[in-house]
Amino acid sequence: MVASDVVRVNPDRLRDFTRRVFVALGVPDEDSYVTADVLVEADLRGVDSHGVARVRRYVQGIRDGVMLPRPEIRVVHEMAATALIDGGAGLGQPVGVRAMRLAIEKAQAAGAGFVSVRNSNHYGIAGYYAMMALKEGNLIGMSMTNADVLVVPTFGRDAVLGTNPISVAAPSGKERPFVLDMATSTVPRGKLEVYDRLGKPVPIGWATDERGLDTTDAGRVLRNFKSRAGGGLLPLGGAGELLSGHKGYGLALLVDIFCGVLPGAGYATRIYPKTPEGKPLPADVGHFFGAWRIDGFRPLEKFQAAMDDIIRLLKGTPRAEGQERIYIHGEKEFEAAERYRAEGVPLVGKVYEDLRAIGGETGVGFDI
Amino acid sequence: MVASDVVRVNPDRLRDFTRRVFVALGVPDEDSYVTADVLVEADLRGVDSHGVARVRRYVQGIRDGVMLPRPEIRVVHEMAATALIDGGAGLGQPVGVRAMRLAIEKAQAAGAGFVSVRNSNHYGIAGYYAMMALKEGNLIGMSMTNADVLVVPTFGRDAVLGTNPISVAAPSGKERPFVLDMATSTVPRGKLEVYDRLGKPVPIGWATDERGLDTTDAGRVLRNFKSRAGGGLLPLGGAGELLSGHKGYGLALLVDIFCGVLPGAGYATRIYPKTPEGKPLPADVGHFFGAWRIDGFRPLEKFQAAMDDIIRLLKGTPRAEGQERIYIHGEKEFEAAERYRAEGVPLVGKVYEDLRAIGGETGVGFDI
Repeated sequence: MVASDVVRVNPDRLRDFTRRVFVALGVPDEDSYVTADVLVEADLRGVDSHGVARVRRYVQGIRDGVMLPRPEIRVVHEMAATALIDGGAGLGQPVGVRAMRLAIEKAQAAGAGFVSVRNSNHYGIAGYYAMMALKEGNLIGMSMTNADVLVVPTFGRDAVLGTNPISVAAPSGKERPFVLDMATSTVPRGKLEVYDRLGKPVPIGWATDERGLDTTDAGRVLRNFKSRAGGGLLPLGGAGELLSGHKGYGLALLVDIFCGVLPGAGYATRIYPKTPEGKPLPADVGHFFGAWRIDGFRPLEKFQAAMDDIIRLLKGTPRAEGQERIYIHGEKEFEAAERYRAEGVPLVGKVYEDLRAIGGETGVGFDI
Repeated sequence: MVASDVVRVNPDRLRDFTRRVFVALGVPDEDSYVTADVLVEADLRGVDSHGVARVRRYVQGIRDGVMLPRPEIRVVHEMAATALIDGGAGLGQPVGVRAMRLAIEKAQAAGAGFVSVRNSNHYGIAGYYAMMALKEGNLIGMSMTNADVLVVPTFGRDAVLGTNPISVAAPSGKERPFVLDMATSTVPRGKLEVYDRLGKPVPIGWATDERGLDTTDAGRVLRNFKSRAGGGLLPLGGAGELLSGHKGYGLALLVDIFCGVLPGAGYATRIYPKTPEGKPLPADVGHFFGAWRIDGFRPLEKFQAAMDDIIRLLKGTPRAEGQERIYIHGEKEFEAAERYRAEGVPLVGKVYEDLRAIGGETGVGFDI
């Protein structure tokens, strides 16, 4: 098998393999299952940058002692509609699910509930947590997280913010739910890597060079990340204010306020700290979760009917010349998940082979 | 005086004049004051498209009977952290302020509070309401509204969404607060009008023509609005998905879900309805307000110190080549307000003369 091939794998077997890897590393059963489920859900939804390709980094974090397999997770403070949770430097997924459950509980009781998390790690796709609210039937869900430093502020030269995604999920009646799950940068780093591999110039508006100027050279941006020479990904709206890049920058900062400043986690360049010798310390990533009870405002059936109506209205509106279809957010991902459940999840060969290696290293074997 | 001149006016006199206009139209004293204050605050902050230039439209709405001067505003339903308010087809500002006050009250008691409003009208700048939370000292505030149809969805030909702004305001310690107040379109309609007057081509990414394709011709877009020929403003990120215009579209739809679908107000093309004969009906604009109590998560002083730190960190980061300064959101507007309080608010001659005419029509005189 050539490493660049794509391998189709059964999502249930992939989830179970991933779960067993974490169990072998000392992560409790339920936490291992949750972490595996969040990762495989990303692959199913076509967000492979946040899927099992991340397992290697988690394994490394646990081995380096900066991600604790059995963290002490505790509620530090709470009110009827709020709470702060300390993640104890564990994996982001278990504390993320626990925090979102608490937000949901509070929303069911008070009408709205919000939980911020500090001292956590990468938590996978933001959409997973927002979509937990959909299973309740009567809630709108929200989730955001800060992230490793990759994005330059408007008029800045150096990356000081993360791609800081925002997700909001709202149920409908007969139509598919609305699931917005967006990085606040124009594109994620992974898109630059794809263009770099293909030797294609990237569009103006994606990234800047070490002077802080627009560039089409993906390789240069990626090299600059490694050497910390400056430049980085651009916020949604691109460089400067002409196409309103300050709005994307504002959204990224907003996420850092709710996820870093509010819970007392890392933020901006204070996230993913290192010792003076360059050794990684616990990442101190922060998250923010929320839920609103729809019938805290008006009857659920009326909301569902209006959601169906606005979705149909948008999808039925005339298309721009040359376009075939108007999408609702989350629709492409739901379709990918249906296809991949039937046909198998596509993993690039490199990731597949790395999972095989991890299976060997951790002694769980490899059967996917 | 030439109509294109700029006239400097005293903001207190402008506010009082505007208040008296609404009183003369039958709006209660306090509601008149609030409406005038929101409008003049926009002019002070340099957002003149949402300032007293709007008075004419409000006067017209009251005369047409589609904006009621003395609406019945009522709380339809509530829980500890939620409420729905019916604005009774009155001015947007009085019900907006009342709804934000209720959200603040709920946040002080439960830790978070959210109020959605239906059956309202244009409410001015979103930032005014979010900033009400700042006066409390211990809250983060949020406000959003849907708006008249101007924005095309990704891959769509026709405008079906509003510029649907989002504002979030968070306090700091010694630094100025963070006040994000952004339309979810790349630019507002007013920017096209400015370029059209100057005969300048607009950048690609601002608007589309009647085929739904990128255009640099502002006049064409504005004419198409009038004739309903198609095209419109583009969501943040521009046309298609290359620069992630689907994210701006997602944010616009998100605002319509919270402001239109959730409270049972108008949304998408169902806002600003007309009779079959083309006569305007009550606009049925919807809003959404929220507040979070910071010490519902962690001590206020620690939050304030971390806000100061992230703001200084961002402002002190190296600048891109050719750039002088990195801004925090709201900073330019606070500086404008300081300058205009001292030097007077600049009104374009056309607006100034129209206010004089309104002063005559309503019998309140003209002394600004």
